[in-house]
Amino acid sequence: MGSFQGHALPGCFFYVAGIWWTGKYSLWHATRRNRSLGSTRFASRASQRRLEIIESSVILFFSFVGMLAEQFVADGPRLHLYDFEEKHWKYLHNWQHATMYLFFGLAAAVSLITHSTEAAPPALDRLMLGIAFFNEGFLFLYHLHGRSMLDVHVHQLLLYAVFGQALIAFLEVFHRGNIILELLRCTLTLLQGSWFWEIGFVLYPPSGPAWDLKDHSNMMFITMCYSWHLAFALLVAGVLYCTVSCVVRSRLKRTPPVEMGLLKTRERDAESEDEI
Amino acid sequence: MGSFQGHALPGCFFYVAGIWWTGKYSLWHATRRNRSLGSTRFASRASQRRLEIIESSVILFFSFVGMLAEQFVADGPRLHLYDFEEKHWKYLHNWQHATMYLFFGLAAAVSLITHSTEAAPPALDRLMLGIAFFNEGFLFLYHLHGRSMLDVHVHQLLLYAVFGQALIAFLEVFHRGNIILELLRCTLTLLQGSWFWEIGFVLYPPSGPAWDLKDHSNMMFITMCYSWHLAFALLVAGVLYCTVSCVVRSRLKRTPPVEMGLLKTRERDAESEDEI
Amino acid sequence: MGSFQGHALPGCFFYVAGIWWTGKYSLWHATRRNRSLGSTRFASRASQRRLEIIESSVILFFSFVGMLAEQFVADGPRLHLYDFEEKHWKYLHNWQHATMYLFFGLAAAVSLITHSTEAAPPALDRLMLGIAFFNEGFLFLYHLHGRSMLDVHVHQLLLYAVFGQALIAFLEVFHRGNIILELLRCTLTLLQGSWFWEIGFVLYPPSGPAWDLKDHSNMMFITMCYSWHLAFALLVAGVLYCTVSCVVRSRLKRTPPVEMGLLKTRERDAESEDEI
Amino acid sequence: MGSFQGHALPGCFFYVAGIWWTGKYSLWHATRRNRSLGSTRFASRASQRRLEIIESSVILFFSFVGMLAEQFVADGPRLHLYDFEEKHWKYLHNWQHATMYLFFGLAAAVSLITHSTEAAPPALDRLMLGIAFFNEGFLFLYHLHGRSMLDVHVHQLLLYAVFGQALIAFLEVFHRGNIILELLRCTLTLLQGSWFWEIGFVLYPPSGPAWDLKDHSNMMFITMCYSWHLAFALLVAGVLYCTVSCVVRSRLKRTPPVEMGLLKTRERDAESEDEI
Repeated sequence: MGSFQGHALPGCFFYVAGIWWTGKYSLWHATRRNRSLGSTRFASRASQRRLEIIESSVILFFSFVGMLAEQFVADGPRLHLYDFEEKHWKYLHNWQHATMYLFFGLAAAVSLITHSTEAAPPALDRLMLGIAFFNEGFLFLYHLHGRSMLDVHVHQLLLYAVFGQALIAFLEVFHRGNIILELLRCTLTLLQGSWFWEIGFVLYPPSGPAWDLKDHSNMMFITMCYSWHLAFALLVAGVLYCTVSCVVRSRLKRTPPVEMGLLKTRERDAESEDEI
Repeated sequence: MGSFQGHALPGCFFYVAGIWWTGKYSLWHATRRNRSLGSTRFASRASQRRLEIIESSVILFFSFVGMLAEQFVADGPRLHLYDFEEKHWKYLHNWQHATMYLFFGLAAAVSLITHSTEAAPPALDRLMLGIAFFNEGFLFLYHLHGRSMLDVHVHQLLLYAVFGQALIAFLEVFHRGNIILELLRCTLTLLQGSWFWEIGFVLYPPSGPAWDLKDHSNMMFITMCYSWHLAFALLVAGVLYCTVSCVVRSRLKRTPPVEMGLLKTRERDAESEDEI
Repeated sequence: MGSFQGHALPGCFFYVAGIWWTGKYSLWHATRRNRSLGSTRFASRASQRRLEIIESSVILFFSFVGMLAEQFVADGPRLHLYDFEEKHWKYLHNWQHATMYLFFGLAAAVSLITHSTEAAPPALDRLMLGIAFFNEGFLFLYHLHGRSMLDVHVHQLLLYAVFGQALIAFLEVFHRGNIILELLRCTLTLLQGSWFWEIGFVLYPPSGPAWDLKDHSNMMFITMCYSWHLAFALLVAGVLYCTVSCVVRSRLKRTPPVEMGLLKTRERDAESEDEI
Repeated sequence: MGSFQGHALPGCFFYVAGIWWTGKYSLWHATRRNRSLGSTRFASRASQRRLEIIESSVILFFSFVGMLAEQFVADGPRLHLYDFEEKHWKYLHNWQHATMYLFFGLAAAVSLITHSTEAAPPALDRLMLGIAFFNEGFLFLYHLHGRSMLDVHVHQLLLYAVFGQALIAFLEVFHRGNIILELLRCTLTLLQGSWFWEIGFVLYPPSGPAWDLKDHSNMMFITMCYSWHLAFALLVAGVLYCTVSCVVRSRLKRTPPVEMGLLKTRERDAESEDEI
């Protein structure tokens, strides 16, 4: 992928995913907290389920497209992996990226099954998401041999976010619905997204001179830069969370839940049962 | 053990163990979920106990056979360890493998005691299993000195699965019966099994030319290969789990639990008490 | 900051923070334990809240002052970071320190919002504190390249305290109000404070000859010294905890809660509800 | 301490402590399980407390003696640490060992306070024990610079047991009274004890030729040896646990609790309340 676009594209995907997840979890948390005001209008159990199914389908679709793109792009492997004439492996980078997409696709497929049927235990979607992130970090970890110092360093910093996401997704298996963990994972997703852009700018600057990849002061600046990205991700997640909370509360106060009559009692009971 | 067979054999054992455990835990989970349909016919508390005892006995037997085989195989140590004439240790590999079997044997013995008597706390079987896997990983970790790069790498990758199993078995001490952890452990057992085969094929190719153990692109391919093995193990565990779940549910629906009359009430009470 | 004062100043801040926190948590713990004696006079729910708000405001203020001071001190960067003429980064240390203050400021701001409104989940303040400490440790970790052995070693020892605080603050997200964790975090804050002083004395001795930064016996002494600082921090935290506990109990016994009549029943009910 | 006796002595202490703890926790666990048979005769709440106080006093006494011995032994430092004439640190090893004893003494003192008064939270004794073990491991970790390969290796293996004990003591803060964790900690204490003896035999063989400290096959043998020590420690702990359990049960069955009349009801109620 050695190009600016090759880093900007996953950066966009992760950033959009981070914003989407922050909004989703903030909405659901606000819904849970304001149940007494009839907040289930915004996010009933059934609509949550529908949303999860749509989200999983979209991720599954993009993973599939990503795998195909890695294989059949202009100078791609087209399912070749070994060059029998020169006796060495070819296109290893494309295959590695396709493998990463494969795991995100697997996670999305499991999430789809979990939310559309009753067959699988619900925590399985988080476990698979954790495994997908772990696999991404695992492949990046052994991806760095023989590169220059700064190149290795920016990718190592990325691993903090990636393994952090894996760890928190694994913790969510045991603490499902904990808003603190969910927001932390969203923040790390945003961090990963913006850091991919940063890697693109540092290694393949679209304008201006190339960076000196062996200068130690560059490395120190990049480390500090990572902290700034983290602070910015925290800010974005925080602002989004507050906005969603305020909007939900103000809308609930404006329109009292008059339409929720006795007819819906049965549905609401089902909701509260699910919550346990 | 430096041979293809020497790696294929433990690979088979772990693969069979992985499939067996996946089936067992899937069946028990399906049983717990469908209690209202009388699913305890398939796996009553007593039959679960009997199954555990049989399983532990089998593992104990094979551990014992393995230890004997390592000692009394054609060019084995026959309980010799130190060569007093040349003043150095001999047969260290055989003794190390025997030590690994010893710990799995210990784990099986403890599991046997735990499930056949009331003396030991029930979580002890998982602790001992965790210690057995930890010991396996520990011995492999200090096993690699002075080998070539790829040889070290394939064994290091194995350690992810081995220490992962140890960690999850330790977590199960506190979260016993959590199907997510059980399936994850099964998946890692399957991964370990298939990876032993892969090690055999890479280091001692039964046909074709030997691999270049110092080529970096080989190392990158092997890393990716590990991800594929993990994906395959996830797939196998997932398919097995779904199959068992479906079979249990379809059989329960076909034959309603008519035979469970009042006479069995007492037994069912005992079951539900145990569950707490 | 390469100066004695530059290490003594943060040392003072952390030491004061450690003593303050130890006192605060000890008082609240004593209050919770002696509720039956009417201890809520000392630390009612409302006064706890007010205290937290004041504390957060003070930290926020000092973080802001610290950031300004790092920028506009005599030979500071004044918001410059890159020297376009000589094409390298300048003032990286000042910017790194300002970044550390930024995260503590963020944590204080979040704590302020958490305790003054109902918008944010209460555990968020600990998460942000954990992230602030993690960020401090993270920047120190990549701060040490190319320094002499003893310099690296004293900063590495500091990281034990810093990452320890981050870890414990993260554990407090799940175990809020656990006095053991709170006291342990206070102890590590005290340790960090006194160790900053030690670093100042070792690297920039205000009197006497400079230390030999390459002598191995110095390194061994420093390691042992760290243990002594830890023991001293444990002692200080322990003595403070005991003193506060005794004072609270003796005052409660001297003045029985006669003034707590029926009028206050409603307030006390609110207290006990909050406690859940 | 560079001598056989210097390693055999702590080995004895830890081994005795391991056996003592295994017996104590096994007895208390058996007592808790057989409450219905009147087992509180063997270990009532008050007698448990008394036992803890005696144990803490003994540890405190030996820590104090150890610290004095390290200082005032024939060629000891007598509270000197710095040689002002030759300008270097002296007797660092003695001071390091004294520091280790200091932390075990602190842990014992805290345990004494915890069990003899109501002032401190009960989990504090485990935290301090964990810190004492952590400190021991921490000092050993930076103790090894410049030694020969096998010397470093045997001490590194010791760290597995030491840090393992620290970790499990820390887990016990949250899972107090979990027999699995208690037995695991006892096992690691036994392992540490017997491994100290092994270190003595390897580095300072009392008879026979010295070991070749640079031979790699020696290192592999020692690694395997550590596994055997672990297996032996597991066996000792297991046999002790079973013996104590059997003795308690057989004694309870022989002498039914006839003497426990109505007069003691009140005491038993207090017991069961404590248990919560």
